[in-house]
Amino acid sequence: MRLLFIYPQTHRAYYDDYYFLKFFNLYILRQKGDTKMKLTLTKEDLNKGLQTIAKIAQSKTNNLQSSNGFLLKALHNVIEIQANDYEMGIKTIVPGIIEEPGETFIANPYLIELIHKLPSDSVQLCKKDTDTKLLIIGGSVKFECATMNISDFNEVEIVESGYAQFTTNSIILKDLIDHTSFACSTNTERPIFMGTHLDVEKNRINMVATDTHRLALKTYMSETPITTPIKVTIPSRLLMEISRNLPIDIPEPVTITAVRNYLAIRFSNVYIKTRLIEGEYPKYERVIPKDFQCTVTTDRAAFTSAVERVSLVVQNPQYNLIKFSFSQNQIKLMSRHPDYGVVEDLVACDMTGEDLTISFNSKYILDLLKHCHEEKIIINLRTQSPVLIKDKDDSSCVFVVTPMREK
Amino acid sequence: MRLLFIYPQTHRAYYDDYYFLKFFNLYILRQKGDTKMKLTLTKEDLNKGLQTIAKIAQSKTNNLQSSNGFLLKALHNVIEIQANDYEMGIKTIVPGIIEEPGETFIANPYLIELIHKLPSDSVQLCKKDTDTKLLIIGGSVKFECATMNISDFNEVEIVESGYAQFTTNSIILKDLIDHTSFACSTNTERPIFMGTHLDVEKNRINMVATDTHRLALKTYMSETPITTPIKVTIPSRLLMEISRNLPIDIPEPVTITAVRNYLAIRFSNVYIKTRLIEGEYPKYERVIPKDFQCTVTTDRAAFTSAVERVSLVVQNPQYNLIKFSFSQNQIKLMSRHPDYGVVEDLVACDMTGEDLTISFNSKYILDLLKHCHEEKIIINLRTQSPVLIKDKDDSSCVFVVTPMREK
Repeated sequence: MRLLFIYPQTHRAYYDDYYFLKFFNLYILRQKGDTKMKLTLTKEDLNKGLQTIAKIAQSKTNNLQSSNGFLLKALHNVIEIQANDYEMGIKTIVPGIIEEPGETFIANPYLIELIHKLPSDSVQLCKKDTDTKLLIIGGSVKFECATMNISDFNEVEIVESGYAQFTTNSIILKDLIDHTSFACSTNTERPIFMGTHLDVEKNRINMVATDTHRLALKTYMSETPITTPIKVTIPSRLLMEISRNLPIDIPEPVTITAVRNYLAIRFSNVYIKTRLIEGEYPKYERVIPKDFQCTVTTDRAAFTSAVERVSLVVQNPQYNLIKFSFSQNQIKLMSRHPDYGVVEDLVACDMTGEDLTISFNSKYILDLLKHCHEEKIIINLRTQSPVLIKDKDDSSCVFVVTPMREK
Repeated sequence: MRLLFIYPQTHRAYYDDYYFLKFFNLYILRQKGDTKMKLTLTKEDLNKGLQTIAKIAQSKTNNLQSSNGFLLKALHNVIEIQANDYEMGIKTIVPGIIEEPGETFIANPYLIELIHKLPSDSVQLCKKDTDTKLLIIGGSVKFECATMNISDFNEVEIVESGYAQFTTNSIILKDLIDHTSFACSTNTERPIFMGTHLDVEKNRINMVATDTHRLALKTYMSETPITTPIKVTIPSRLLMEISRNLPIDIPEPVTITAVRNYLAIRFSNVYIKTRLIEGEYPKYERVIPKDFQCTVTTDRAAFTSAVERVSLVVQNPQYNLIKFSFSQNQIKLMSRHPDYGVVEDLVACDMTGEDLTISFNSKYILDLLKHCHEEKIIINLRTQSPVLIKDKDDSSCVFVVTPMREK
């Protein structure tokens, strides 16, 4: 099964793997499991399990029918739900009563929402020997749900070890992802920038994303050092999906295992495998500016509102050019539309260094301001050079934005 | 000016009117008003006034630049905002201090949102003699807003009398609109069905809309009879815009005046003129069924949830065919998708008459259920005939839906 997780270099190789495995492994071994099944779950547990795999089960990344849908597997006293779209595989365990063990493969665009809307607290799932339908009963509702041939589903295989492994917690990992991956590129021509880079060395966990116009870097210092460094680039789309699933009410341990070309992430009842983006990530440390002409401290909320207001009137909504004039006691923001007028706003600030006027794409500034949290932020500037912005008393997260040239 | 409100039969005639009026009336008379202005308003009042005219000021129904934007007129101790898109004209009075009277025509897609986001409680608007810009100052924000040539704006002229007039209150009118206009058609081929019909005769005010597949009729019995009947069809789009502006915290008097081809509606500080749809509205009373085989009483909320659930699995999302089997104690709902399965749900009911199975487009049923309010609803049925649904203890509003033929 592991071969299937190797990012396919060509479609040809990919299909070869697929049919080879299907024939020798899945098809022969699985036929006996595809019989009957009877389970009772609470609606809440089933719903939670389905929400975990929903995005992957309903993913449209490729046209193979078998990659959509999910596998419901109730064998060996464990009810498992898994989905697999060849970029990411996800597996979760849900509590419930197994009256008859069994497994079934469901690719049904309506099921998840229907389960969510059931009028009862408990849900019964059952399938007879000869049935190709799974009967779902919840209160007054009865749904005869069509099922797929189980041999068409490629199970998410669990790998316990890789070349490196470290453990953190769900809140830290979510923080790392949420503060960085938004800054990635959406341009498919340079796939490396569509990813978020994870760089772990000794005690230092760095996560970084950039689209070459702006960059976000979050650092976390862990207590236990790692022996083998990890330097991998994960598709940001998949990382955001992982972030969505990470529990945040209490910190739960998360184990991250790096294998040659994928990453395995395990927490609570969830196991996730994601493919990696091939290629070397650029040396991001080099683009983080260190030398400044002036340093400005200002109120985050007031500055954010002013940027929002001034960005309303921009000439080209793609560039959102705003001119910022930093001086001793105030920041003047200005934007101009040739047909509609000129808007100006002022924000109080403290400044050390020289006065400076510079223009930025306000969308980038607003994006990063959403990820600052403290009352005050620090803006470090140099003429016609990238700006560095961070929270005043927290240097774990820095944002860099390149300036725009004014006409 | 009145001519401009005549629904233009041809574009040619329309332009003739336009230039004729512009030359003889507007252009000559208005130039002297187009000088300076200085006003102070609270942000809340200005914002409320702008929200009232926003949809019309930013309407895209025609390409004449002059029909977008709004006129701000502070003359004779009254600050007025008006917008006019040739289908609907709207005028509202806002409180404020006039330091220098004046008027200005603004067509700026950013202004309304910018005013909404100003950081201050009061807003100053000023314009010097020679300026073509209106300076808007609110707290730290200064906006030099471009203005248009005032002679290009066609004012909304107030007409006090028509062939018929009646007075009701804002809550009643909003109720009449909201319970009916949703049922109109969006098909431009038969414009009459894109409107909502107002039919006032003596004490009876009827509002009705239909797309020929379903119909909604709301009746209100007024205390004071009207002498001349009114039978007009108003574009539903405009009625919904009127509904949005009607105050609902307390009932405010609303005066409706019918003129030959438009309707004038006046309430609070707002005056609205809307064009009418030409042509005779079909005899809607005839399609309201009166003779039934069975009458079913059921719980509105439970029935709505069941219809929602069962509609999740439909074969053709355009028809949303659901089969309803009404019997003595229960309604069985069923829908089928050839690839994904069959879903069934049951709802308890009381029934008098014969058992009956009939199919409907669930979208129509759900639409009307949103406009029922009581705990129980009554469903009146006859084989292969339109169903009539209403609240149990309120017959002022009835909904009719035609059945679908099952394959």
